[in-house]
Amino acid sequence: MTQAGSSQMVTTSLANDAVAHFPDAALIALDWGTSSLRAYLFDAAGQVLATRSSPAGIMNLPRSAEQGGFDAAFDDVCGQWLKDAPNVPAIAAGMVGSAQGWLEAPYVDAPANADALVAGIVRVKAACGATLHIVPGVLQRGELPNVMRGEETQIFGALGEAANEVDPADSNVRALIGLPGTHAKWAVVQAGRIERFHTFMTGEVFAALREHTILGRTMVTPDRPDAEAFLHGVNIAREKGQAGVLATIFSARSLGLTGQLPGQKQPDYLSGLLIGHELAGLDAVLAQQQDSLAGQSLRLIGNEALCERYRLALAQFGCTQTELVKQATERGLWRVASQAGLVNPAAQPALAR
Amino acid sequence: MTQAGSSQMVTTSLANDAVAHFPDAALIALDWGTSSLRAYLFDAAGQVLATRSSPAGIMNLPRSAEQGGFDAAFDDVCGQWLKDAPNVPAIAAGMVGSAQGWLEAPYVDAPANADALVAGIVRVKAACGATLHIVPGVLQRGELPNVMRGEETQIFGALGEAANEVDPADSNVRALIGLPGTHAKWAVVQAGRIERFHTFMTGEVFAALREHTILGRTMVTPDRPDAEAFLHGVNIAREKGQAGVLATIFSARSLGLTGQLPGQKQPDYLSGLLIGHELAGLDAVLAQQQDSLAGQSLRLIGNEALCERYRLALAQFGCTQTELVKQATERGLWRVASQAGLVNPAAQPALAR
Repeated sequence: MTQAGSSQMVTTSLANDAVAHFPDAALIALDWGTSSLRAYLFDAAGQVLATRSSPAGIMNLPRSAEQGGFDAAFDDVCGQWLKDAPNVPAIAAGMVGSAQGWLEAPYVDAPANADALVAGIVRVKAACGATLHIVPGVLQRGELPNVMRGEETQIFGALGEAANEVDPADSNVRALIGLPGTHAKWAVVQAGRIERFHTFMTGEVFAALREHTILGRTMVTPDRPDAEAFLHGVNIAREKGQAGVLATIFSARSLGLTGQLPGQKQPDYLSGLLIGHELAGLDAVLAQQQDSLAGQSLRLIGNEALCERYRLALAQFGCTQTELVKQATERGLWRVASQAGLVNPAAQPALAR
Repeated sequence: MTQAGSSQMVTTSLANDAVAHFPDAALIALDWGTSSLRAYLFDAAGQVLATRSSPAGIMNLPRSAEQGGFDAAFDDVCGQWLKDAPNVPAIAAGMVGSAQGWLEAPYVDAPANADALVAGIVRVKAACGATLHIVPGVLQRGELPNVMRGEETQIFGALGEAANEVDPADSNVRALIGLPGTHAKWAVVQAGRIERFHTFMTGEVFAALREHTILGRTMVTPDRPDAEAFLHGVNIAREKGQAGVLATIFSARSLGLTGQLPGQKQPDYLSGLLIGHELAGLDAVLAQQQDSLAGQSLRLIGNEALCERYRLALAQFGCTQTELVKQATERGLWRVASQAGLVNPAAQPALAR
């Protein structure tokens, strides 16, 4: 899980929040990934009282796991909250539940609904006495298996938002949710279940191509994103991408060599190529299910600037109804905690929009 | 240009060849790339008398270009040969003719035959008095331009071999020639012309994925290539690759996470996926030209172990007639030099098979 849209919330730094006390605390919820840890403190109405963040992702703990690194990171971020409200329940999602995490929460199989996630929760007793409930990831078996950890919680957060209007469990509408990022996920959700999903390594491949291949050598970072170059790449992938991404990416170099694509345009052009190939690939698998991106109404979860890129690219595929879901991470953590009985399930999430 | 099949030839090292003299020398021919320089000394019958090689590629000169780095590298490798036979003509192909090379030999446009290459030769006067003839690369213009430098000479070397039976200029047979490598090239050749070609960054992308993404973290180098894992990857790309390579590569990780692909099998599986996607992409562009890999008789130029991988993969696409062309580099240099009148054009290449 990355980049929750939390800018509207109270954010306290590690240094100066010793003065803040939250006697109304009802839930501590953690988005604990590979490279960062973000914590949310909720009241009983599902309102976020405070957030804290730390770089102590599971691959970046203050000390090794054997030497209590998980406990130390948990204490650093949540110790004061737990001192104020020692019995507040705590829940976490993300890579903290992986084999390299604090305690492995084995994947639950897709299709998976929120009940399945709850049934898969594992509990770890922290040194401070608190019990941390770790949400499992989701596994889709098959010749090309897919896994997610953290995104399942964000997806249920996005569904929880729609729940204000329609109970997702009653809905037979098939929804598509995209989570752009290092490993972009696309999930098909129906009747409150994650039916199936796909992973595209778009973000990580972009970084590897830019930093570790010849394509990066002539690239110049532009002052601002170049939408024209980006859309050029998207449309090359969409219309002329038959040879595949291994072939089209070479055009970032050959267009440069022939004076048609200056260095400043090359990063956004390459980004457009990769996202364009991702969406073309997604469209191809949707077609196998008698579906398509064209005319689709879908939700995006993630970094706003990146989601805006995807919105632009999706429009080239005829998909103009894209909604950016904010605060999906904290909404999802709240929702799973509610479903698990850690907080009063009747309380409505009251997160500020 | 890389890895000419020169193991059958006399190879002299830089240290101990001061004793060897070649009064019959008729041509010095250089394969001068980014990271290495390989030199061939021919007699008037087109027989290779000696080869020398050096790490002084154009990005790895003994001193900077401004300080005579090209001259120094040329002297190091060919100085003794030129001392023995001061008037022997010299020709070079590869990145030495790029904008970063000794002297830029502007690309000639595809379709390009050997005459077009000869017409595009540029001449640089070395400090030692010799004139080096630099063969240009080939440019295919378009929305997705393609460029090659060095491979055009290898391709004409491969055609030269066929010329023993049929004059390639008279042939109307369309031939497909593959040059696997860092940037794999596939060229369609007809009537002695490079009609069009495609570039796939397969080798460089494999290295970047393996060394700079999460996929490499669980990989273990096997004792020997794992053909089964390789073919598994090829066939996933061929049969289940609709979502594209950005999606399928994640299976190298997810199959590992689910215990279905041990670390030792992951490198060859990923190699198979990438080469499989390359060939599927090539097949898709061939289909646009009412052609296909199935039933195709084609030639491969390059590193033998890598060409063997491609041969295995091509068979999965129904292409079982693959011939590895050896010594294409030196044959091509000889052929272009002959066509340019640097050596007696009537002399037949007499390279050992």
